[in-house]
Amino acid sequence: MHIKNINDCPLKPVEMAGVQGATMAMMCGKEHGAPNFSMRQFKVEPGGFTPRHSHDYEHEVFIVEGGGTVFLEGKENPVRAGDVILVPPNEEHQFKADAAKGLRFLCLVPGMRNCGDPTPGS
Amino acid sequence: MHIKNINDCPLKPVEMAGVQGATMAMMCGKEHGAPNFSMRQFKVEPGGFTPRHSHDYEHEVFIVEGGGTVFLEGKENPVRAGDVILVPPNEEHQFKADAAKGLRFLCLVPGMRNCGDPTPGS
Repeated sequence: MHIKNINDCPLKPVEMAGVQGATMAMMCGKEHGAPNFSMRQFKVEPGGFTPRHSHDYEHEVFIVEGGGTVFLEGKENPVRAGDVILVPPNEEHQFKADAAKGLRFLCLVPGMRNCGDPTPGS
Repeated sequence: MHIKNINDCPLKPVEMAGVQGATMAMMCGKEHGAPNFSMRQFKVEPGGFTPRHSHDYEHEVFIVEGGGTVFLEGKENPVRAGDVILVPPNEEHQFKADAAKGLRFLCLVPGMRNCGDPTPGS
């Protein structure tokens, strides 16, 4: 049975160009038997950020705690605990953590693109 | 742009046989442009529960606040804020809210089964 608390998971550094102070843990993915989509946890330290990039699959995001901004549709938009955000496919995006509180969120991705090709990070 | 807080959404009663005191809101689904999977919010009042049932698609669940139990693999398992739960396809399941605190969770479902048939509730 797969029941796992977000506070009990080791987080690993996100190693991508353009990232600062971000760690992640796969909470529910293929390795746990998830058939179609994957839930990852991200923690971004105060003042840190995820890479500004785009890709051909979507994100569904839930802000668990803290706050900051998401760059989407060409501008910075404030985000806070309890927000749900859709990052559509091919949309440039970046999450930045508040300088005081940091940012913790869930980010879900589809497991497959076009009913066949694996999605990176799923 | 789709940014929506879980506290700003009207919740509608879940009208299914075997449910008590549960409401839900679609947070991110097809109507918002989600291509592959849908995020719903559920609130279950203290002592309430979702139906005990099974279906041929999975859930990925995140407990936002409160606590209670999930019936899974034939037994009641405690759940608390921060827990991530995979309910595999065809697995009988039911969420019950703590008698004092109630239970609030996100429940995600795939949009399609078999790369074609729509999933109920997605």
